[in-house]
Amino acid sequence: MAKPRLEFFFDFASTYSYLASTQLDAMAERAGAEILWRPMVLGAVFQGAGNDMPAKVAAKAPYLLRDIERWAKHYGVPFKMSSHWPCPTIAAERLTLVADESGKGPAFAKAVFRAMWAEDRNINDEAELSKLLAEVGLDPAAALARSKSPEIKERLRTNTDLALSRGAFGAPAMFVGEELFWGNDRLHFVEDALKRAGA
Amino acid sequence: MAKPRLEFFFDFASTYSYLASTQLDAMAERAGAEILWRPMVLGAVFQGAGNDMPAKVAAKAPYLLRDIERWAKHYGVPFKMSSHWPCPTIAAERLTLVADESGKGPAFAKAVFRAMWAEDRNINDEAELSKLLAEVGLDPAAALARSKSPEIKERLRTNTDLALSRGAFGAPAMFVGEELFWGNDRLHFVEDALKRAGA
Repeated sequence: MAKPRLEFFFDFASTYSYLASTQLDAMAERAGAEILWRPMVLGAVFQGAGNDMPAKVAAKAPYLLRDIERWAKHYGVPFKMSSHWPCPTIAAERLTLVADESGKGPAFAKAVFRAMWAEDRNINDEAELSKLLAEVGLDPAAALARSKSPEIKERLRTNTDLALSRGAFGAPAMFVGEELFWGNDRLHFVEDALKRAGA
Repeated sequence: MAKPRLEFFFDFASTYSYLASTQLDAMAERAGAEILWRPMVLGAVFQGAGNDMPAKVAAKAPYLLRDIERWAKHYGVPFKMSSHWPCPTIAAERLTLVADESGKGPAFAKAVFRAMWAEDRNINDEAELSKLLAEVGLDPAAALARSKSPEIKERLRTNTDLALSRGAFGAPAMFVGEELFWGNDRLHFVEDALKRAGA
């Protein structure tokens, strides 16, 4: 039987996607599941769904920062508010798709998440992105060139449209079959669904 | 030493407040904590905080219903989408404050939550409210009269202002000391905070 499959749609701009990303490997292990890391463009998802950034509500912003710190502590993972946020994340997302062509998408995505949300690095800078590509064993110049191809640009748009068409309105958006789960705080439901799908 | 104390600010219109309400007694027991049930007017909180109902985002509404059903199943509590929602909940909230004057606030609040979110009863109807008052041993006519007093009306406004001034922007808004926790999905953090406060 095929392994149960989680499609994890994320944007590097999303702190809760980062938090979830730190838990996926262990969850996949527990549930005997496979994870597909699918970058998407969160701004386009918000626009398409008529939604907006949670932090746009002034009273929510300080609470959310505190909440993220609580989750990081709960998981035992590092977190440092990015001095670069909000910044464009599209270059890193296209590079994730390039990395995926040689099976390094998940490793690259995890490295970018860490750079953005634990190390305060500027992931919209090609020099930083080159370092991250090299870290996972990719040729930076070749990967950067490939990331600007129409094919890769189109693939990122397709991911975004796919998430929207299946009901996503925020990040992370996670699908087990066609069942949507939204948010780092629903990983326990995702794990249950994977276990049911694998049973 | 005084028991650690959770202030639970809620509105009967909030499904996630209902879900949380079903877990509070067991949590208080585990944490050796005391719970103060504080009705507030969620519409005024949204307005004051520049926030809006989550279900206003069209793509979010069907997801939220599914999410609530998942939580109800997870908790093993009944849930039935109310055919009366959205409806005014202010009468029931004032009555909770009246019930509180004879120590029956929590029992009445739990009865109203169940009526609204498990039994599809119209909690904006005085006949239904009278039945609920009688269920918890209160005199319906006297309680209804008292609920219309300026003092009770003022007390509900004060609760609402208090929640807002401490940073609330949605429901349930829960405080352990001055630490704010938002949402049924943060009860594990609330419990940790109560245990720390009691240690």
